[in-house]
Amino acid sequence: MPGYSRFLSERASLIQPSPLSSIISKINEIAKKGIKVISFAAGDPDPNVLPREELSKISQEILHDIPSSVLYTPSIGLEELREELSKFISRYDFTVSSDELILTGGSTVAIDLLARILVDSGDIVILENPSYINTLLAFRQLGADLIGVNIDENGMNVEELEKTLKNLGEKLNRVKFIYTIPTCQNPAGVTMSLERRKNLLEIATKYDLLILEDTAYNYLYFGEHTLPTLKSMDKEGRVIATGTLSKIMGTGFRIGWLAAPNDLRKLIIAEKQQIEFCPPTISQYLAIEFLKRRIYERSIEKAKRVYQEKLRVMLGLLKDRISEARFIEPKGGMFIMLELPNIDGEKFSNDLLENKAVATIPAKKFHVQGGENRIRLNFSRPSIQEIEEGIMRFAEYYRNYEKRDGE
Amino acid sequence: MPGYSRFLSERASLIQPSPLSSIISKINEIAKKGIKVISFAAGDPDPNVLPREELSKISQEILHDIPSSVLYTPSIGLEELREELSKFISRYDFTVSSDELILTGGSTVAIDLLARILVDSGDIVILENPSYINTLLAFRQLGADLIGVNIDENGMNVEELEKTLKNLGEKLNRVKFIYTIPTCQNPAGVTMSLERRKNLLEIATKYDLLILEDTAYNYLYFGEHTLPTLKSMDKEGRVIATGTLSKIMGTGFRIGWLAAPNDLRKLIIAEKQQIEFCPPTISQYLAIEFLKRRIYERSIEKAKRVYQEKLRVMLGLLKDRISEARFIEPKGGMFIMLELPNIDGEKFSNDLLENKAVATIPAKKFHVQGGENRIRLNFSRPSIQEIEEGIMRFAEYYRNYEKRDGE
Repeated sequence: MPGYSRFLSERASLIQPSPLSSIISKINEIAKKGIKVISFAAGDPDPNVLPREELSKISQEILHDIPSSVLYTPSIGLEELREELSKFISRYDFTVSSDELILTGGSTVAIDLLARILVDSGDIVILENPSYINTLLAFRQLGADLIGVNIDENGMNVEELEKTLKNLGEKLNRVKFIYTIPTCQNPAGVTMSLERRKNLLEIATKYDLLILEDTAYNYLYFGEHTLPTLKSMDKEGRVIATGTLSKIMGTGFRIGWLAAPNDLRKLIIAEKQQIEFCPPTISQYLAIEFLKRRIYERSIEKAKRVYQEKLRVMLGLLKDRISEARFIEPKGGMFIMLELPNIDGEKFSNDLLENKAVATIPAKKFHVQGGENRIRLNFSRPSIQEIEEGIMRFAEYYRNYEKRDGE
Repeated sequence: MPGYSRFLSERASLIQPSPLSSIISKINEIAKKGIKVISFAAGDPDPNVLPREELSKISQEILHDIPSSVLYTPSIGLEELREELSKFISRYDFTVSSDELILTGGSTVAIDLLARILVDSGDIVILENPSYINTLLAFRQLGADLIGVNIDENGMNVEELEKTLKNLGEKLNRVKFIYTIPTCQNPAGVTMSLERRKNLLEIATKYDLLILEDTAYNYLYFGEHTLPTLKSMDKEGRVIATGTLSKIMGTGFRIGWLAAPNDLRKLIIAEKQQIEFCPPTISQYLAIEFLKRRIYERSIEKAKRVYQEKLRVMLGLLKDRISEARFIEPKGGMFIMLELPNIDGEKFSNDLLENKAVATIPAKKFHVQGGENRIRLNFSRPSIQEIEEGIMRFAEYYRNYEKRDGE
């Protein structure tokens, strides 16, 4: 038997499992016992919001009519999809041509490809504290030292960011980029204010830094006018943007995109072909029709309406039943992050799932520092009834948990 | 404007573009002029062999009936697909349980995930010379030093392998694994004999090495009984196997798999979630039905029949028209590799495409050393007529090219 340790690279020690998989396994175990789990653990849209009938009909047409729908596509993605997507992104996010877009099998792939080009072991990546766990762990896998800048109701605290940069001294040139999800952030649901966005760009200019802007939840901002993207305000080519069709079209289709300056883009394209070859073809053809037939826009409107109502119900119940819970009210997205005094979030989340069949995600591992008493709740996927029932169970369990904890 | 060079990591210098994309671009350019290109450049199945009608109907059913078909799956893939696949692989390749399989968005993703865990910069990876270009370049991206072991009609020359290992001295412990495609190899179409397979395993034991066995073309071996996989003969847990549904079901669906020993598998699962999250869901549901309804087996039989005939036609024409061409007759797969005396393969391939609208892939970059006068031809994708017309144009152009070259 080969002794594996000899075969492993240094990188193996940097790989940390995300808690998401173990929670999904636990949910499945409990479900197998015949107990219905109410899950606030997902990062998915509500499948009832998605136009599955239309998708179903279109998929049949595509596979029937287009022989190449079952074959490889160019590594950067189908030209027609890049064109449709560039029109859409240009309308809502920032001006971009189809040639500037690289399509990937989900935006996690895009972020990883970019980070692999930019980050050497010991480099620094700055991100919101907390930030999206998979991205955070992906940067760690590459050996990056992470600096977390705290957030408040206006997003990343830019004063804290600037202070941090000032104090870095020599190490400043190890900073490879600032990763941010400015709109309806995961996990905290927070949206960065216009002023903060401007400040962030000024700071990037002042310290000559790159920014990686993740637009994943842009279309789920409930307000009338979405705040301008950092990329749209960037005059210097220092913002790289990434996004996904997942949140609106469905998370299973695996279509993400990246828009980077030309020289960087060429490297990513060369790198990409050897790693994921091409994004799934059938998903790309579906996405073309989704955009062309304006199903995407209708789905956005429907999703916003439905999720806003779900959030309203969840917030009402939380305020009513768990008055100790502190949180920032999201202006959209899919998540709300609770801070509960005097609990260990990981233990509580686990106990709640085992005892009350309510699944949540402990938020500690979304943090660079702190977050021990925080829990992430998803409000997009569960039904209104599930939200009502689930938050009631949560509140009841928390009430007794507190007492038991205080004994 | 940020000076990008400062932001790039050392790894950026290791990224080499594959010639595949530039050839696809050139084909598209020529096609836009209204000239019909005959392509032997693809790595795709013939879409007319694929049961698109059935796929079309099944996709409609899935999206209609299964709400979760549009959502994330567990990162390792749907349990039901892993079960169906484990049954199939156990029948044809080696005994494996569903828990031992990790599903990925294509086998290139699987190979990259594994290599990232095993390979540090300066480590050695041994592979056939030539080998699959994207894998070869992916290992290079990680900073691996490649050692190419030449092949003949019985596959990898194991005597040369052993000599190489003996001569490595101190460096032997930098060898992370031997990558091999034993059956119907890409690009040379060669299949490793049973004796060589046994020898390879003995050598791996003797030098305590891991083997990564790529089974991509196993089901396209035209003979009655496929040779046993290395994994099926491995008693020591030193063979890691990877494979794909692409070659039979369609290359656009992006479903690959990896079977690795337990401790390694755990690391890959942890790593994977942060990079590609999950394989495309709709493809997974399609694959379940493909396997369950035995469409997969029927497609294999049909593909073998059709490709064998195409190969027969191509070989006949090559022998007849380009008598100088040397090649090993493939026993299956999708590719044949020609060696043409006195040509520069890259220049010839380019000239042939521009002057005769026949696309081929120069094989030099599939090689660690040599291969300058080699060209890869695909016989699965073009029609019989295209093969006839294309090889005639090829032969005619080569004839004059030789003369012109000799002047």
